[in-house]
Amino acid sequence: MNQFEQVTTGMGEECGVFGAYDMDGGNVAPTVYYGLFALQHRGQESCGIAVTDTYGERKVRSKKGLGLVNDVFDGESLEELKGNLGVGHVRYSTAGGSRAENAMPLVINYVKGTLVIAHNGNLTNAIELRRELEYTGAIFQTTIDSEVIAYHIARERLNVGKAEDAVKNAMKKIRGAYALVVSSPRKMIGARDPFGLKPLCIGKRDNTYILASESCALSAVGADFVRDVEPGEIVSFTKNGIESDRSMAIPADKQARCIFEYIYFARTDSTLDGVNVYHARITAGRALAKSYPVEADLVVGVPDSGLVAAKGYSEESGIPYGMAFHKNSYVGRTFIKPSQSERESSVKIKLNVIEEVVRGKRIVMVDDSIVRGTTCANIIKMLKKAGALEVHVRISSPPFLYPCYFGTDVPSNEQLIAHAHTPKEIQKMIGADSLGYMEIDRLKEMVGDLGYCDACFTGNYPMEVPGRDVSQAFE
Amino acid sequence: MNQFEQVTTGMGEECGVFGAYDMDGGNVAPTVYYGLFALQHRGQESCGIAVTDTYGERKVRSKKGLGLVNDVFDGESLEELKGNLGVGHVRYSTAGGSRAENAMPLVINYVKGTLVIAHNGNLTNAIELRRELEYTGAIFQTTIDSEVIAYHIARERLNVGKAEDAVKNAMKKIRGAYALVVSSPRKMIGARDPFGLKPLCIGKRDNTYILASESCALSAVGADFVRDVEPGEIVSFTKNGIESDRSMAIPADKQARCIFEYIYFARTDSTLDGVNVYHARITAGRALAKSYPVEADLVVGVPDSGLVAAKGYSEESGIPYGMAFHKNSYVGRTFIKPSQSERESSVKIKLNVIEEVVRGKRIVMVDDSIVRGTTCANIIKMLKKAGALEVHVRISSPPFLYPCYFGTDVPSNEQLIAHAHTPKEIQKMIGADSLGYMEIDRLKEMVGDLGYCDACFTGNYPMEVPGRDVSQAFE
Amino acid sequence: MNQFEQVTTGMGEECGVFGAYDMDGGNVAPTVYYGLFALQHRGQESCGIAVTDTYGERKVRSKKGLGLVNDVFDGESLEELKGNLGVGHVRYSTAGGSRAENAMPLVINYVKGTLVIAHNGNLTNAIELRRELEYTGAIFQTTIDSEVIAYHIARERLNVGKAEDAVKNAMKKIRGAYALVVSSPRKMIGARDPFGLKPLCIGKRDNTYILASESCALSAVGADFVRDVEPGEIVSFTKNGIESDRSMAIPADKQARCIFEYIYFARTDSTLDGVNVYHARITAGRALAKSYPVEADLVVGVPDSGLVAAKGYSEESGIPYGMAFHKNSYVGRTFIKPSQSERESSVKIKLNVIEEVVRGKRIVMVDDSIVRGTTCANIIKMLKKAGALEVHVRISSPPFLYPCYFGTDVPSNEQLIAHAHTPKEIQKMIGADSLGYMEIDRLKEMVGDLGYCDACFTGNYPMEVPGRDVSQAFE
Amino acid sequence: MNQFEQVTTGMGEECGVFGAYDMDGGNVAPTVYYGLFALQHRGQESCGIAVTDTYGERKVRSKKGLGLVNDVFDGESLEELKGNLGVGHVRYSTAGGSRAENAMPLVINYVKGTLVIAHNGNLTNAIELRRELEYTGAIFQTTIDSEVIAYHIARERLNVGKAEDAVKNAMKKIRGAYALVVSSPRKMIGARDPFGLKPLCIGKRDNTYILASESCALSAVGADFVRDVEPGEIVSFTKNGIESDRSMAIPADKQARCIFEYIYFARTDSTLDGVNVYHARITAGRALAKSYPVEADLVVGVPDSGLVAAKGYSEESGIPYGMAFHKNSYVGRTFIKPSQSERESSVKIKLNVIEEVVRGKRIVMVDDSIVRGTTCANIIKMLKKAGALEVHVRISSPPFLYPCYFGTDVPSNEQLIAHAHTPKEIQKMIGADSLGYMEIDRLKEMVGDLGYCDACFTGNYPMEVPGRDVSQAFE
Repeated sequence: MNQFEQVTTGMGEECGVFGAYDMDGGNVAPTVYYGLFALQHRGQESCGIAVTDTYGERKVRSKKGLGLVNDVFDGESLEELKGNLGVGHVRYSTAGGSRAENAMPLVINYVKGTLVIAHNGNLTNAIELRRELEYTGAIFQTTIDSEVIAYHIARERLNVGKAEDAVKNAMKKIRGAYALVVSSPRKMIGARDPFGLKPLCIGKRDNTYILASESCALSAVGADFVRDVEPGEIVSFTKNGIESDRSMAIPADKQARCIFEYIYFARTDSTLDGVNVYHARITAGRALAKSYPVEADLVVGVPDSGLVAAKGYSEESGIPYGMAFHKNSYVGRTFIKPSQSERESSVKIKLNVIEEVVRGKRIVMVDDSIVRGTTCANIIKMLKKAGALEVHVRISSPPFLYPCYFGTDVPSNEQLIAHAHTPKEIQKMIGADSLGYMEIDRLKEMVGDLGYCDACFTGNYPMEVPGRDVSQAFE
Repeated sequence: MNQFEQVTTGMGEECGVFGAYDMDGGNVAPTVYYGLFALQHRGQESCGIAVTDTYGERKVRSKKGLGLVNDVFDGESLEELKGNLGVGHVRYSTAGGSRAENAMPLVINYVKGTLVIAHNGNLTNAIELRRELEYTGAIFQTTIDSEVIAYHIARERLNVGKAEDAVKNAMKKIRGAYALVVSSPRKMIGARDPFGLKPLCIGKRDNTYILASESCALSAVGADFVRDVEPGEIVSFTKNGIESDRSMAIPADKQARCIFEYIYFARTDSTLDGVNVYHARITAGRALAKSYPVEADLVVGVPDSGLVAAKGYSEESGIPYGMAFHKNSYVGRTFIKPSQSERESSVKIKLNVIEEVVRGKRIVMVDDSIVRGTTCANIIKMLKKAGALEVHVRISSPPFLYPCYFGTDVPSNEQLIAHAHTPKEIQKMIGADSLGYMEIDRLKEMVGDLGYCDACFTGNYPMEVPGRDVSQAFE
Repeated sequence: MNQFEQVTTGMGEECGVFGAYDMDGGNVAPTVYYGLFALQHRGQESCGIAVTDTYGERKVRSKKGLGLVNDVFDGESLEELKGNLGVGHVRYSTAGGSRAENAMPLVINYVKGTLVIAHNGNLTNAIELRRELEYTGAIFQTTIDSEVIAYHIARERLNVGKAEDAVKNAMKKIRGAYALVVSSPRKMIGARDPFGLKPLCIGKRDNTYILASESCALSAVGADFVRDVEPGEIVSFTKNGIESDRSMAIPADKQARCIFEYIYFARTDSTLDGVNVYHARITAGRALAKSYPVEADLVVGVPDSGLVAAKGYSEESGIPYGMAFHKNSYVGRTFIKPSQSERESSVKIKLNVIEEVVRGKRIVMVDDSIVRGTTCANIIKMLKKAGALEVHVRISSPPFLYPCYFGTDVPSNEQLIAHAHTPKEIQKMIGADSLGYMEIDRLKEMVGDLGYCDACFTGNYPMEVPGRDVSQAFE
Repeated sequence: MNQFEQVTTGMGEECGVFGAYDMDGGNVAPTVYYGLFALQHRGQESCGIAVTDTYGERKVRSKKGLGLVNDVFDGESLEELKGNLGVGHVRYSTAGGSRAENAMPLVINYVKGTLVIAHNGNLTNAIELRRELEYTGAIFQTTIDSEVIAYHIARERLNVGKAEDAVKNAMKKIRGAYALVVSSPRKMIGARDPFGLKPLCIGKRDNTYILASESCALSAVGADFVRDVEPGEIVSFTKNGIESDRSMAIPADKQARCIFEYIYFARTDSTLDGVNVYHARITAGRALAKSYPVEADLVVGVPDSGLVAAKGYSEESGIPYGMAFHKNSYVGRTFIKPSQSERESSVKIKLNVIEEVVRGKRIVMVDDSIVRGTTCANIIKMLKKAGALEVHVRISSPPFLYPCYFGTDVPSNEQLIAHAHTPKEIQKMIGADSLGYMEIDRLKEMVGDLGYCDACFTGNYPMEVPGRDVSQAFE
C-alpha cells in the first residue's frame, strides 16, 4: 500500500509518541519537535507537545492542533514551550473524526498536580470502562479512549505513593493495545501493554532520556538507542535515572507485536524489538519470491512502502531490481481530488511510470497490500500503457479478512476487495497476469522468534475482543 | 472607562451566555451567532457554539476558538452546526490566560449522554470544590471553574431523575456568581445564582425560546423579551414548554446584582431585572450633577461608556451636551501599540478631540471610571490643547478599593490610582480643574429597589469571600 | 447614511492617501500605519505602505494587501519597512472589483529610479489616455486609472529635470479628480486637481512632513496642521524644505470641492480647506430645521454619520437631542448576512433602539442620505415598535439624481429610491410621518465661500464628463 | 544534490510553465492545477494560474500567490477560474527575492486586449532592454525580466496583424534563455529560445492542447505527448489547430540545451527533446563507473536525485545496488532549522541511514553535485557511524566553475567548494575514501546527438554573456 492510498482509504496507525527528559535542565521542546517529525508517518491529523520544567515552577505549557508538525508549530511556539521534560504526539486521521479536542497529548490536572499523557493504541474495553467511570460521575471532553486511561491513573494515584504505581494499577484495568508516554511534574514514565502490540523504545543523548515509538526518532535527534521498553514493562525516568517494573509482563510466547508495523507502518530505518524493519521487508520480498516465482525481466516496488520488499524479491529471484515510478512528493493531504469526469486521476497525479524502464519488459510489481483494488488496477494499467508486457503482482501481506481492535484503521469489510473475492478473482479484477499474497505461514520469517499478532489475517486475536467495531463508539 | 482602556488594563466582565431552543426543530446556529454578536462586548477573547438536534441523533456539534465571533465563525462552520438546541458563549480575555482550552461552552459526555455548559461568573469556592473532586479521582482539562460546575452536575445526575434537579443539587454546593445556560440532549436549562450577581433573561420568537445575558441580544435576533430569570431560579425548556424551580431563591433584600453591569458592562439598550441601563446611566449623570455642580459651558462624555452619563449630567444641570470626541472604530484588539519613544499615543490614535466643539469652553467631562489615570490625563491634555478653558471631571462610579471575587476583572491594587491617592491628589495628577466621583450613597438611585452588590467600592461582600485573589488559581 | 449601509450598497469614497518624510532620517512606517488608521473610513478594501530610505540605498520596500490596516500589517511587517520617506493608501471596495493587484500605492520603476504613487479620485479621461498609451506600446497590470497617471509622469520625466515638473506636465493631460502623494528616491510630492475635488493637507511634527487626505490623520500622529494643499497646487518636500508650484491653479470661483466630503465622507474631527466638518454638519442640521420645522419631542441621529446633523437640528429647533440607538461596533465587513427567511435582519444586528429614550415621543430622525430606502424603513419600524409616536425624517443631503464621475461610488439609478420616486412617495414607502431633504440652495451654508461640486444633486458638473459610467471600464 | 539542499543553498531552476487550451470550451483550470503539481519541483516560491474564456467575454481571471500549488489554490479558487484557455506558472525562490509582485503568469492589458505570459528562463540583455524601454517612458512593476518580454510583445503587436508575429519580433530583440507560454484572447502561443536552453513540449488530450516544461506534466493530466517545441520555434494554437513558425531557428549544431536539466532539474519520468531523463542519468552513472571504477560491496544514491545515477553505476560495475537512506518527506520548506548548539542537524532530520544495509560494507555513494560540501560530509559521517567501511563518492556532474546567465541559480563562487579546492582537497574535506566527478567529455554520452550547454562547467557560453551576475539587477 503506498503512502497516499492510506490517506484516501482511511487505513493506518493511530499514533506516534515521543518523550524527552533532560536531566541537566535544558529545553527539550526542539528535540520533541524533531522527534515528532521522524514519527510523522504514524499520524498526520493532529499533533501536540506539552512540556514541564521539573526544576522550576513545574507548570505545563502545551500546544496542540490539527495538521502536520510543520503546520502546528513555528519558531515562536517552540520558544514558548520552555521546560526540560516534554511529551509529544502525532495522531492519525480516522475518516470524519477529525476533531481539535482529540489532539494529544492530554494535559490534565489531578490530585497530584499535572499529568501529561500520550497514547498510541486502542483499548478493547474502553466502552465498559468509560461507562463505569460515568456511573461514578466522571465527565469526558474528548472521544479518545486515552481519557479513560487518564482517569484510571488519576484515581489509582489516590491510593499509591508513586505515579508509576498508579500507571501499573491502571494497566490492570485497561485491556488492549497501548504504548504510553506519561509525564508527571517530576518524572517521565513509559509503558507498553503486556502483549507488546505497540512499539516503544528508549534512547539517550548526553543526559537526556528519550522515549519514542520507533528508533528512527532517536536517530533524528542524535540520540543513541538504549533498548526497547519490554511488553508489559513500566519504565520511569527521574533525576535519579531509570527504574523498571516488569511485574505486568506475560510470557514471551504470548506476546503479540503488531506484524503490520513491520509490513507497513514503521519506517524502514527503524528497529523494533530487535528486528530491523528494512530486514523484515527484504525477508518478506524473499518469501514472496520463494512462494511465487515467475519468469520476468524486472522487479519493481510501488513507492514508498513496496520498494524494499521488491528489493528482497529481486535478491532472492535474481531478477533485476528497477525503479519504475516517479512519486510526486508535493501532493499533500489537502490537494483537490480530480472529479470522476476528468481525465486526470489521483493515481496519475501522484505516481508516474518511467516508460524507459518498463517498456518491453515482463514486470514483477510488489506492493504491501491491496485495499479496494482500484489503485492497484490503475497502476497496472499505467504500466501496460507504458509498454510492460506482463505485470505479476506480489503483495507482501496476506489478505485482510478480520477487523483490528487494537488501533489499526482497516477499512470496513465492504470496502476490502479481499473480503468478497478470491485472489484469482482479484487478479482478474486488477488486470494482473498473476497475483501472489504473502503466505500466513511465512510471516514468522520476518520477525524470527518474536511473538506477533496476525489477527487481521487469521482472526486469531491474542486476547478477547468485542464482537463489533468500537472505534467510533464515542463520536 | 472607555472601551479600549478595558483592553489594555485588563478590567472587564468574564463572559456572555446565550441559548436558543427551537421547538419546531429549525436550525438555531445562526440565531446563536447573531446573539453572540450582541453580547460580544462582554468578552472578546474566545467564543463558541455547541448545538444538538433534539429530534435527531442528539449528537453535539461544536466549534470554539480564540477571537471575536466574526473571526471564529464563517458561513461554512454555521452550516455544519446543525441542530435546534444551541448554546453560545463569549469569553473575556484575562491577562496572560488566553488559552484555547478554556474556550466555552464546555461540551462533556457523562452518564446521561452529553451536556453543554456556558457559564458567566466566578465561583468563590472553586478551589475547595476542585480539590474535593480531585480527591475522588477527578481530572481537569481546563483552568476555568466551569469545569467544577460540570462535574457537580454530572455527579448529581446519578442520583436524580432530571437534569434540572442535578443543576439544583450542584447549586447547593457551588458558591459565588453564575449565570448558566445548559443543554442536555432534550432540554435547555438556565440558572442564576441566588444573589443574582450575573444577569440572565428569557426571550421568545415564534416557537424558539432564548436565554441571554442581556436583553439586547433578544432584540438582535428579533425575539420578544419574556422575563428575567430570577436570582436563584432554575428554568428549563422542553418540548412541553417552560418549567421553573425557585427553591434556591433567597429573600429579595439579600439579592446582590453587580452594580457595575449598570455603570459599565451592559449595553445601554439592555434592560436587566427591570432596570434599563440607559436610564440607570442617565440617573448616574444626574446624581453627579447634584453632588458636584459646576459652572461650565458644555458637558461631554468619553466614548463610548461615558456618553449617557454625560447626557444625564447635562439634563440635570442645564449645561448643554456636546460631542467633543471622534472615536476611531477601526482600531481593534490586535493593533500595534505605539512605542513610548514615538509621538503617537494609543489615546490619540483611538480618540480625537473636535476642536470646533471645545475651543474656548469650560468643559465637564464625564467618564465611568479612572483606572490608572494615564488615559484620563491624556484626554484632558488633548482637550486643553484644543482650547478648552477648564476641564471638570465627573466619574459615574465611586473609586475601586476592593477586589471583586465574582468575575469582574479589576486591576490589582498597585495599578489602581484610587488605591494610593485621594481624589484631590488624583485631580492634580490628571490635570483636571475639579474631580467628582459618584457618591456611594447615590448608587441606589440608579437601580431603585433592586438589591445590588457594591463590594468593589465598599468591601461589603454579599457572601463570605476568600481572603485573596483566586482568579488565576488554576493556571 | 450609516456606516454599514455603505458596505452593503457599494456607496463610498475611493481612497485615502498619506505620506510622511522624516528629514532626520527616522523610520516613518509606524507613522504611516497610524495615519492610515485615521483614514480607514475612506477605504476598507485594501491598503498598502511603501517606504524609501532617502539617505541609504534608496530601495523601495512595500507591502500591500486586501483588508483593513490591522489585517494587512503586523509588527513584523512594519519592522521590515525601513525608510524615512513613506507613502500609504487605503482603498475603497467597489462591488466585485476586489482585486489584490489594484491595491495601492503603485510602486514603479522608471527611467529615474523608483516612483511611488498613491491616488485618491477618478480621472474622467482615463479611457482615452489609456488607449493612447496602448497605441504607443504601453502595458497595464491593474484596472485602476492611477496606472495611467504613473505612465504620464514617467514619460514626462524624460523631458524635464525635476519629478515635480513631470507631475505638472502629467496634470496637463489628465482630467478629473485627484489628490496625489508621490515619492521619488529623494523627495515627497503632493498634488491636487485644479478643482480641488479631493482634499489634501500638510502637517509637520518635528522634522517630519506629512501629507494626508484629512487633518484627522495629522492629529492621530501628533503632527500640527500646516495648511491645505491648494487646488491645482503641487508641493514638493526635499531635504531643503517645501516648494510650491501653483501654476496649474484656476480661479477660486471655479473650484469645486466635493460637497459630500462634508456631508458624509470625512471624519467630523477633520477640517478641510478651512471648513470644519463638524461645523458643516451642525450647519446642515440647522438648515434642515429652518427648512422643515416640526413639532416634536426629540431629535435623534442615525449613527454614526447622522449624529452631528441631528445635534444641529436640535440646536436650531430647540427640541432636545437624544441618543436613540446603540450601534454594535463588532459587526465587521465579513459578518455573515442573515438570510431572508430568518427573523434576524442586518439592521437589527447592527443597530438597536433604546426604548427608554423614544417611548411615547414624537421623533425627528436625522440621517445623511437615503439610498435604497430599506434600511431607513427598517429603522423607522424599529422606532415605532419601541413606542415612538411619530417619526419625522430629515436628510442632510439633497436626493442623488446624477452619477458622480470623480470617484464617489453612488449606486446605479435603479437602486436609488430617489431616482424613481418623489419625496412624498418615499416618505410613504419608508413609513415616515414627514420627510425633508436638504435644499440644494442651502448647501452653500455648510462651506461658506468655498467653491464646491454638487453635481450628484444638480447635474452641474464642473468640467466636461463622459456620458456614461466608466468606473468599471478596465475590469 | 538532494532536494532539500537546494532549498538551503539557493541553487535551482527558475520556473515551470504550463498551458492548456480546450477547443471544446471546457474549463481548463483543474488541468492547469494538476499540471503545475507535476512541475512543482521546478519552483516552489510562488505560483499562479490565469484563464480566459475564448468563447465568452474573453475576460482574464487569475490568481497568484507565494507558496506551493497546494497552498495557493483551493477548490473555491479553481471554481472561480472559469475559462477554456489557461496558463500556469511555478516560480523558484531565489534567496531574498521572494516578492508577491513577481509571481507569474503576468497578466497585462495592452492595445489588443489582454495578454498572459508565463516565462521560464533568463534574458542576458534584460538590463539594456529595460533601460531602452524606460527611455521611451515605460514603467515596471516587478523585478522579473518577463515584464521586458511583455513590453516588447505589446509594442510589436502595434505593427503586426497576429500575436505570434509580435512574439517573433520580440524574440528578435531579446537574448538569452526562455520557454514561453502566452495566451491572447483567442489563442495559446508557445515559444522557445533558438538555443533551446529551456525545455517545452506539446501534448494533447481529446480536443485540449497542452504546453508544458516537461513531459511528466502531460502524463499527470492524462495527455499524450505530441512533440517538443523546437528551439527557436513558435507554435500557436487556435480553434483551427496548430500553426508553427520556425523562422527563428538556428542550425542544430548551435543548439545548446541546458545539460543540468538532465543531471538534476527535470523529473526522471520526463523526456526532453527525445532524451529520457532516467536514461540520461543511468548513462551518467555508467560513465562514472567507467571513469572511476572501485572495488566495493554496494552502490547507493543520495535521495532523490542521486538514486538513478547510482543505479547506472551499479549496472555498469556489477556492484549491487542498495537503499541506504530513508528520506523524511514531511520536512517541508518552512521547517524550523536546528540551531548549531543542538545535537540535531538538518541532515539527520531529513535523511537517515539504514544501518542494516551499510554495516560492514564498502560503499559507492552517488550524488548529482557537491555545493558547499557540508551536507556531503555529514552524510559520509552518518554512513561511517552506521558501519560503512569505506565511502567512495561519485558525482554525476563536473564541478561548477562558471556562473550561469540563463536562469540556473548557482551559488556564488565563495560558497562553491569546487571553486577554491581541487577534487583531491575536497575528498579529504568531506571525509571520502575516493572522489570522482563526471568528466566533461562524457557529458555528451547522456544526451547523444543533441547540442547542449555545459558553460557552468567549461565557461563556453553559447552566446555572448554579460561579464557579471545580473540576476538581482532589478531588485
